[in-house]
Amino acid sequence: MANKKFVYLFMEADGNNRALFGGKGANLAEMTRLGMPVPQGFTITTEACTQYYNDGERINDDIIAEIFQKLAEVEKMAGKKFGDKKNPFLVSVRSGSRASMPGMMDTILNLGLNDVSVEGLAELTQDPRFAYDCYRRFIQMYSDVVIGVGKEAFGKMIDELKAEKGVILDTELTADDLKELIAKFKAYFKADQGIDFPQDPKDQLIGAVKAVFRSWNNPRAIVYRRMNDIPSDWGTAVNVQSMVFGNMGNTSGTGVAFTRNPSTGEKKLYGEYLMNAQGEDVVAGIRTPMSIDQLAETNKEVYEQFVEIARRLEDHYKDMQDMEFTIERGKLYMLQTRNGKRTARAALKIACDLVEEGMISTDEALLKIEPKQLDALLHPTFDEKVIKKAKPVAKGLPASPGAACGKIAFSAEEAVERANKGEKVVLVRLETSPEDIEGMYAAEGILTARGGMTSHAAVVARGMGACCVAGCQELVVNEAEKKLIIGGKTYTQNDFISIDGSTGNIYGEKIATVNATVSGEFATIMKWADHRRALKIRTNADTPNDAKQAVEFGAEGIGLCRTEHMFFAEDRIPAMREMIVSKNEDERRRALNKLLPMQRADFIGLYEAMGDRPVTIRFLDPPLHEFVPHKDSEIQALATEMGLKFEELKKTIDELHEMNPMLGHRGCRLSITYPEIAEMQTQAVIEAAIEINTKKGGNIVPEIMIPLIGDVKELKYVKNVVTKTAEKVMASHGVKIDFMVGTMIEIPRAAITADEIAQEAEFFSFGTNDLTQMTFGFSRDDAGKFLEEYYSRKIFESDPFAKLDQTGVGKLVELAIQNGKKTRPNIKLGICGEHGGDPSTIEFCHNVGLNYVSCSPFRVPIARLAAAQANIKNPRK
Amino acid sequence: MANKKFVYLFMEADGNNRALFGGKGANLAEMTRLGMPVPQGFTITTEACTQYYNDGERINDDIIAEIFQKLAEVEKMAGKKFGDKKNPFLVSVRSGSRASMPGMMDTILNLGLNDVSVEGLAELTQDPRFAYDCYRRFIQMYSDVVIGVGKEAFGKMIDELKAEKGVILDTELTADDLKELIAKFKAYFKADQGIDFPQDPKDQLIGAVKAVFRSWNNPRAIVYRRMNDIPSDWGTAVNVQSMVFGNMGNTSGTGVAFTRNPSTGEKKLYGEYLMNAQGEDVVAGIRTPMSIDQLAETNKEVYEQFVEIARRLEDHYKDMQDMEFTIERGKLYMLQTRNGKRTARAALKIACDLVEEGMISTDEALLKIEPKQLDALLHPTFDEKVIKKAKPVAKGLPASPGAACGKIAFSAEEAVERANKGEKVVLVRLETSPEDIEGMYAAEGILTARGGMTSHAAVVARGMGACCVAGCQELVVNEAEKKLIIGGKTYTQNDFISIDGSTGNIYGEKIATVNATVSGEFATIMKWADHRRALKIRTNADTPNDAKQAVEFGAEGIGLCRTEHMFFAEDRIPAMREMIVSKNEDERRRALNKLLPMQRADFIGLYEAMGDRPVTIRFLDPPLHEFVPHKDSEIQALATEMGLKFEELKKTIDELHEMNPMLGHRGCRLSITYPEIAEMQTQAVIEAAIEINTKKGGNIVPEIMIPLIGDVKELKYVKNVVTKTAEKVMASHGVKIDFMVGTMIEIPRAAITADEIAQEAEFFSFGTNDLTQMTFGFSRDDAGKFLEEYYSRKIFESDPFAKLDQTGVGKLVELAIQNGKKTRPNIKLGICGEHGGDPSTIEFCHNVGLNYVSCSPFRVPIARLAAAQANIKNPRK
Repeated sequence: MANKKFVYLFMEADGNNRALFGGKGANLAEMTRLGMPVPQGFTITTEACTQYYNDGERINDDIIAEIFQKLAEVEKMAGKKFGDKKNPFLVSVRSGSRASMPGMMDTILNLGLNDVSVEGLAELTQDPRFAYDCYRRFIQMYSDVVIGVGKEAFGKMIDELKAEKGVILDTELTADDLKELIAKFKAYFKADQGIDFPQDPKDQLIGAVKAVFRSWNNPRAIVYRRMNDIPSDWGTAVNVQSMVFGNMGNTSGTGVAFTRNPSTGEKKLYGEYLMNAQGEDVVAGIRTPMSIDQLAETNKEVYEQFVEIARRLEDHYKDMQDMEFTIERGKLYMLQTRNGKRTARAALKIACDLVEEGMISTDEALLKIEPKQLDALLHPTFDEKVIKKAKPVAKGLPASPGAACGKIAFSAEEAVERANKGEKVVLVRLETSPEDIEGMYAAEGILTARGGMTSHAAVVARGMGACCVAGCQELVVNEAEKKLIIGGKTYTQNDFISIDGSTGNIYGEKIATVNATVSGEFATIMKWADHRRALKIRTNADTPNDAKQAVEFGAEGIGLCRTEHMFFAEDRIPAMREMIVSKNEDERRRALNKLLPMQRADFIGLYEAMGDRPVTIRFLDPPLHEFVPHKDSEIQALATEMGLKFEELKKTIDELHEMNPMLGHRGCRLSITYPEIAEMQTQAVIEAAIEINTKKGGNIVPEIMIPLIGDVKELKYVKNVVTKTAEKVMASHGVKIDFMVGTMIEIPRAAITADEIAQEAEFFSFGTNDLTQMTFGFSRDDAGKFLEEYYSRKIFESDPFAKLDQTGVGKLVELAIQNGKKTRPNIKLGICGEHGGDPSTIEFCHNVGLNYVSCSPFRVPIARLAAAQANIKNPRK
Repeated sequence: MANKKFVYLFMEADGNNRALFGGKGANLAEMTRLGMPVPQGFTITTEACTQYYNDGERINDDIIAEIFQKLAEVEKMAGKKFGDKKNPFLVSVRSGSRASMPGMMDTILNLGLNDVSVEGLAELTQDPRFAYDCYRRFIQMYSDVVIGVGKEAFGKMIDELKAEKGVILDTELTADDLKELIAKFKAYFKADQGIDFPQDPKDQLIGAVKAVFRSWNNPRAIVYRRMNDIPSDWGTAVNVQSMVFGNMGNTSGTGVAFTRNPSTGEKKLYGEYLMNAQGEDVVAGIRTPMSIDQLAETNKEVYEQFVEIARRLEDHYKDMQDMEFTIERGKLYMLQTRNGKRTARAALKIACDLVEEGMISTDEALLKIEPKQLDALLHPTFDEKVIKKAKPVAKGLPASPGAACGKIAFSAEEAVERANKGEKVVLVRLETSPEDIEGMYAAEGILTARGGMTSHAAVVARGMGACCVAGCQELVVNEAEKKLIIGGKTYTQNDFISIDGSTGNIYGEKIATVNATVSGEFATIMKWADHRRALKIRTNADTPNDAKQAVEFGAEGIGLCRTEHMFFAEDRIPAMREMIVSKNEDERRRALNKLLPMQRADFIGLYEAMGDRPVTIRFLDPPLHEFVPHKDSEIQALATEMGLKFEELKKTIDELHEMNPMLGHRGCRLSITYPEIAEMQTQAVIEAAIEINTKKGGNIVPEIMIPLIGDVKELKYVKNVVTKTAEKVMASHGVKIDFMVGTMIEIPRAAITADEIAQEAEFFSFGTNDLTQMTFGFSRDDAGKFLEEYYSRKIFESDPFAKLDQTGVGKLVELAIQNGKKTRPNIKLGICGEHGGDPSTIEFCHNVGLNYVSCSPFRVPIARLAAAQANIKNPRK
């Protein structure tokens, strides 16, 4: 194999190869190819970055030689020389990975300055003060970013010098002051590092390139990659570009602009610039930049040239562009272009507009929108202007998006009670438990001190589309005394609190929220998506309200109705508890008989909300101890209520205690030990369907789902109970209806033995929450404690509870599909875990051939778009 | 396909096909073929039983026709007729499955009796009283076993009649009395069933056959199958045999005999008989049977004929036989022969003797011994004579075999303290936790009120070979007041208690134990086994004592040393706790430095005990909260001891709480968050090996095992910590030693991604305890509650924690082996879960190609034998 080439001039590079040149490098090459005015330079490829890590974090000699060879070519083109006294060649060094990635080292400007070339720069700009200021900034930046030294010390030296000179602003320091400062900086550098500040521009350059490579693995970059599903093996490219100067007097300037408004999507050039300034001045905020429109007045020719370039770039990339430019003595230079970041609303409008303008197809439009971004359009938010000024008092995990504001309620009962009186409350708890469900519904939002992104509070909140900030360890919650302490300040029931479930921010004050509206483009995009997708989209919904909301968002059925949620309601839990403490089957049946009519009514409500759409009902799943109180005082109260002795009830409850409830007496195991529970639930499901189908002309085919199956014999046993009960119920009503019995695949053994299980199951629904827990051996309630360490040590790159682990859990899913289809080729396949709303998981589900995904109502639009994208990328036959 | 044949005459059946004819049927056929005097009859095959269940628990018409056809043939041979008044044909109906199986219906005698044929029997026997007694017994037995009616009522009627007649014994009732009784029985039957007691012998026969089929699934049979790994789909055969009468006067008799002594193995005919009696009289105990030797005196000819038959049968079956015979008017009939059950000691002696006698090869001898039986030879037991008379006060689960007797200790500390003073104690706890380890060691045995066969107490006790009875719900344990209440009686620290870990029996008194000795045949068999096996046998041992014990039992290495057990000792736990409550790495390192010398000394002790045998050391595995107290009073004490504030310590401990500790912060996850723990452990392992290898001329190659790996990156991270530390340690000692780093495969994801993990792991050890928990989604601490229901409902046939689930968990093991070998063809493979001592699992391990199994010291001989059997059945190339 010939030696691999690691360094390319912009004019050599392939503008379509973002993988190799990074986004910035590819686009610089492309603009060069299109004949646009780009300061020339070269790109060190992403493969060089990978090589750097493979070589043990060093740049090997071959690559260094290539860099210097390309440097020489660029010097020749510019007619300048690195470190030259008269005509110094200066460069910027910028990172550029395949996907835009904040958190990495961004830019080092004016590299090439040293004690000699600084004089050349002074000469060239006719501005010694500027030249020395550039040099001291360069030393400061290079020392900090490349060497990791002097940040505070240098800042202190500046302050001391200003004090000494009796000035307030940096700009008041003279060229000589700055020379003095430079000397001090260099002395400090030498004292600290034992060597001189690098004077050889080539040393500076290699140092900067290494710093860019290193920054690929700095903690913020790792976090960003994890949040955005960017693989860590992509690596970053490095772009070395000739400096041009926007600060060479009043015919020079610099700016940034978008081809369309990134906030609204409006088709109108949008941006700002500053004359006689370098890039950092535009963002520094010391001078107020001007709107890009005003450039037409100050320099019409350049403005028109820029407008034309902008138009060509948008045309070329068929997307809204975000551009950086510099004007050096009246000449326009393009420093960068890229597809511009935009708000969700703008994304939808731009996609629709581009289609209307004939620039792109509807498929291309669908692919342009990041599905997760839609989330922002589906929840209430804080008023942007108000929130900008508000200061968070603490920060937790952004567990469920949206914004909420209300007075603090310290228990679920209190939340319900106060909400019933019309008060807006935020439920604040150490952690939530299933008993809190009603309170969580009643509250505007939920805030917990414990638990991770997949804690009970987080999962339930996302399910109900409620705002939730979880696991904020700065909170001290005293539920008994109804006190919340944040940073030493105490909040009571009378205090307002505001939480932002999208950022995790917590505010100790009242901040108004605004409801989101769905604009016309949203509907258009969804229509296109529905037309294109192969996957059906169902929802996880337990109440008619959720179901209605989901149908509004486009759900085509219920993929998961968790019947247990129905038992936590105030009017049901007494009967549920009576059932749990029953001493024998007769007592249990008596209690179940009380639950039957309520459960039947629940199902009638759900069926009505769903019309003829399919409804999958999962039988009782959680361990029974979740339904009973555990504190002595509460047990005492319950005992009194139930007419039992405290000791007796306490003993019953103690017996329900489990070491690992996740792996305990729950799911189908309940129906096996107490078949009468499955009988009651079957009766409710079937009678509700009979009611709808015969009296209301519906056509419901209930899908009964048995949870936590690990062995076909479990399913066979419970299915037999279900079938016999259904037949009895139908006979007693003199009606026959169709129904299905299937199972969740959520236990590794079920996936492994899916061929056997498919003998009994008419459908599989992948319960990827539990499947992930058991495949990894992680409890999602506990893993938060150590997963952070996993991310920071690069052991995991994403949260396996949010994004399906395709290597491990995914293999089990594929195995189950293969095995299941062997036995029952037409078996209906779906997913109902939290992952059902995650775009990358949806793509996986599409590719492995599921029939549907089911997700919380607020994720339905996201899933519709993600499913369309998956089918566009890999059309299903 | 031709119609399958379901019924065979004894003379038609194949004596080698036990699967089809059951053991009893096959042997009756074989004896017939050998020309032995067998009352003729026919066998209904096990396939007929399966068909019966497939047909919805009915015998189909084809099979019924076949039965009657064979019946007619047998009637012809006997020259008698069913229901005949002069010469009635009577049969016995007996079950007979492939493996001998108590718990099923055994025998119905004298079937064919009715109001008519009873007179024929009276005539034939010249004993009307006997004939009517047979008839009333038949009605009684048939009603009870076949119809399920009248058991108590009939008993009561007999008592009433005796009272009325003024007699005490059944035998005092006259023929007329019995006629009266028969009339009452029939009347009761009719009143209860609405039909007459079946008079048609054919109806009786079909009813009895059905009852045998049904008895295959009665609860006791299911339990027995589960305990003995008998699949439920084998089914049972039914043997219908002409009756012969041992009660036709003094030239008739009946008896049972063994060709060798089943208790000692001595080669001498052993058995007893009664003249003028039927089978049930021998066992009823009303008359005292005579020794078989005496038959030589009463009927020399028959005796010699019997001795000759016994010799031929043993020769033929090449094993000790257990035979039933009847003498009818001086003529000998063989009713049954089978390989006799024997004690473990007898089994060893017989196997060795048979080899010495040239009857069988050593391989055949090895196959004859049930490995699990050896267990009885390895633990102390109660004196047999004493225990026979003792009455248990309660019964728990037989969690770990052996017998123990001592005064009651209610806490681990108390057990240690009193044991140190020379007192023998039994540790009685609600349930044990890892903190109790020392107390468990100190105690003679462990008794718990909670927890199943795989609870902490059970697992640890089996590991240390200590006697344990677990989960006895009849116990009321008040640890605070040091009181134990059983059946209303209170026991204190001064009371003796005796427990039998092999039966689960608990005795409220002092019963002396006797130590087991290993006889010469035991060593012979083990030598043969070692010669034949391909699997290496290692042991799970945490202390030099365990290790020495295991080496005595033949262990060839340590497959699992659980380092955490070393931290629970009184002198270590303070440093361990100091480590746990540390606020930062420095504090943690200080505490770890205190543990280092102790841990190093532990390893030196282990290495010394093991000589040059391999030692696998697993790094810290359990969640840290297992090392700290949880009661406020204990926390307060610890806080005082550590000089901390109660609130502070309580908060730290609360933060360690996990919802599902099994799936929490443990295993390699600890080494990832606190790499300094792995560093300390590595240093101890390596320094101990250096000490042994350099100062004591040893050749230890430590195998460091990282637990709970689910992703190769976890292993890579920890391995890096281990390797770097080892290199530093070796450098500082100026010595190089070899060591290996491997992992447990105990998380489903590890099995699925074993190809990736093998890139880093030099060996795999299957941790099938956790792998079973996670593959099934069962917590072994909690599953006991519902697994009983699973067995009784035939969902599970065996305990997946005792016998490896080959369908599910086994598939993952095979997958991991396949994948692991792809990456590293010579990877060393072992198993260290509890299953490592289970014979059927050992066979699986042999077949899938593991290099070794590791089990508790007391299972090593069992494993050696099981491994030999596996290799005899399926020799490894």
